[in-house]
Amino acid sequence: MFVRGKNYQSIWVDESDPTLVRVVDQQKLPFSFEIRDLTTVDDVYLAISDMTIRGAPLIGAAGAFGIYLATREITPAVNPRHHLENASKYLTSCRPTAVNLAWAVKYMMQSLENVAEEDLSSSALKTAREICDIEIENCKSIGNYGLTLLENISKSKQGAPVNILTHCNAGWLACIDYGTATAPVYLAHDAGIPVHVWVDETRPRNQGARLTAWELEQAGVPYTLITDNTGGHLMQHGMVDIVIVGCDRASKKGDVANKIGTYLKALAARDNGIPFYVALPTTSIDLSISDAFSEIPVEERDTEEVTSVSGFSGGEIKSVRICPEKAEAANYGFDITPARLISALITEKGIIKPEESEIKRLFSQIK
Amino acid sequence: MFVRGKNYQSIWVDESDPTLVRVVDQQKLPFSFEIRDLTTVDDVYLAISDMTIRGAPLIGAAGAFGIYLATREITPAVNPRHHLENASKYLTSCRPTAVNLAWAVKYMMQSLENVAEEDLSSSALKTAREICDIEIENCKSIGNYGLTLLENISKSKQGAPVNILTHCNAGWLACIDYGTATAPVYLAHDAGIPVHVWVDETRPRNQGARLTAWELEQAGVPYTLITDNTGGHLMQHGMVDIVIVGCDRASKKGDVANKIGTYLKALAARDNGIPFYVALPTTSIDLSISDAFSEIPVEERDTEEVTSVSGFSGGEIKSVRICPEKAEAANYGFDITPARLISALITEKGIIKPEESEIKRLFSQIK
Repeated sequence: MFVRGKNYQSIWVDESDPTLVRVVDQQKLPFSFEIRDLTTVDDVYLAISDMTIRGAPLIGAAGAFGIYLATREITPAVNPRHHLENASKYLTSCRPTAVNLAWAVKYMMQSLENVAEEDLSSSALKTAREICDIEIENCKSIGNYGLTLLENISKSKQGAPVNILTHCNAGWLACIDYGTATAPVYLAHDAGIPVHVWVDETRPRNQGARLTAWELEQAGVPYTLITDNTGGHLMQHGMVDIVIVGCDRASKKGDVANKIGTYLKALAARDNGIPFYVALPTTSIDLSISDAFSEIPVEERDTEEVTSVSGFSGGEIKSVRICPEKAEAANYGFDITPARLISALITEKGIIKPEESEIKRLFSQIK
Repeated sequence: MFVRGKNYQSIWVDESDPTLVRVVDQQKLPFSFEIRDLTTVDDVYLAISDMTIRGAPLIGAAGAFGIYLATREITPAVNPRHHLENASKYLTSCRPTAVNLAWAVKYMMQSLENVAEEDLSSSALKTAREICDIEIENCKSIGNYGLTLLENISKSKQGAPVNILTHCNAGWLACIDYGTATAPVYLAHDAGIPVHVWVDETRPRNQGARLTAWELEQAGVPYTLITDNTGGHLMQHGMVDIVIVGCDRASKKGDVANKIGTYLKALAARDNGIPFYVALPTTSIDLSISDAFSEIPVEERDTEEVTSVSGFSGGEIKSVRICPEKAEAANYGFDITPARLISALITEKGIIKPEESEIKRLFSQIK
């Protein structure tokens, strides 16, 4: 996507120096647009855990580049296979809820199984880049399928914008390019279909206010920022035509783990007869998960994210405490939206009902 | 309620100087505990509109004291009745959603109808104080009725705390004393029933994080601060036994206008079979409202409350911007929770189903 006239992805390898994996620093957005270099496995782990990069597809790609960087750390003193094995476990442990990370790391490791030691780095770089290319193609395809939904809604709106509500950031920053939930919006906007996005701020980390708002602004898509409390009211008053969200991990039955609060919007959509879609690459579907509620670990993060809010003031990023000094707090990162509340899943292979039989059929086509 | 060993109400008239109406400055909490003096009708209007004081019962009381202050502004140059009439319209216009303000102002005006000019001030002060006393008694009574609900839940919890979720602040700060939604909690805590409160931070103004958390801490009630996105997840995992919220205005059919986001929690409670109660004095029920969705005005406030967050940093209250500089935002203050999602209304006259027939029966007992 374009930022100040230049085309960016959320992660890439520097063209002139292949030791530099470069990412957009999402902790600094929207206040400043900065690039951060990752040169070690530790750098990747830290960038994921401190939220410099986030979003299921992106951290998948970052995990893949992490394995690539691990191949560059192999010295005569270490056993290459042990080293990579350790790096893969370390990277996978970094974000337990999203499945893409585990998927990408495993994919990388399998691809390197029969590769000679001297070719590990070049092979790993090639495969990591392939993973990125696949994710980009997936997002484009999700966008095209989702576009048909927005086109259909637009037909009945007589030129008024299609109002899309989204939660958190499932945009190009969360992916490599285009995004998942935002891909249909960008493609509709490019196709001249009037769209307007209600952006949930998405506490505690405000990825909606900070990232989705910034992305949409860069792309010239009209949007309105709202608190996480507001979506129900808008839906009650006919101000939302469709909800599209992303996904960190889906079960084989179509239950979806996504940013905390997604479930509440799904309930409101159902209560008001508004279609609720989840946009996700099939790599976010975990066929090993049967019961999303008991089997998908929900990450608990530092409670300071709840007791404080970070923002921009006097030219710098500052944090303010919003509660009594010794307040107890809890910070659950994700919730589960049950399949019964989801109209359909928008995947790169097509739009399907969130049902085990449909998901099985989809995967049988892939293999 | 006690603050640092001294008993406070949220509004009172200074004992030695009856020209001073005093309030706890809720804009400064929880960072500092300050008292603000209101000496004119304008002071009252400003204190309500800038949220120095908020909460349906409290702004009702403030409106009553506003009329009292208006009687003190009568000079030989003005027609007393015109002056009071103007003050009453001005004060009522300040917060359109809550009904208590209009109710209290009207009550004051009626009480002054046949009062001689020289007795207006003393009569107004007496009536405003009566309104406060009535509200305090109402809150105590709501607390006692609500206490029976918590006692019943506690019986099945084998000593584990009853987990109450609440939204916004319907505590003593929002009322005069005890609160509405918090009154059962305080009484249960005093009675030795183990309770624990999940406190929604309640964006955009964070009345939960700032006021409810502070209140509970002062009273020694265990609580955990959460983002507004979190309640659904907690309910899915059996971590909430009961939801109790306050109310700005209820229709004669039992639909309830309350702080934006209340509706989302009601949906989650319903989806998980968790009882959802609204605690309110009968003065918050507006028998003139049949269709809450079209007839209760929903206040839209300054969008800066959404684009910024105010908190404590470096020893002072500061505001940080959380989104791109030119972000569009919307700030709806309230939403409507339909009666079908409400288990019951806890009023000072008893616990009733949110149904027109029950509400009628209740009011027939009052008159």
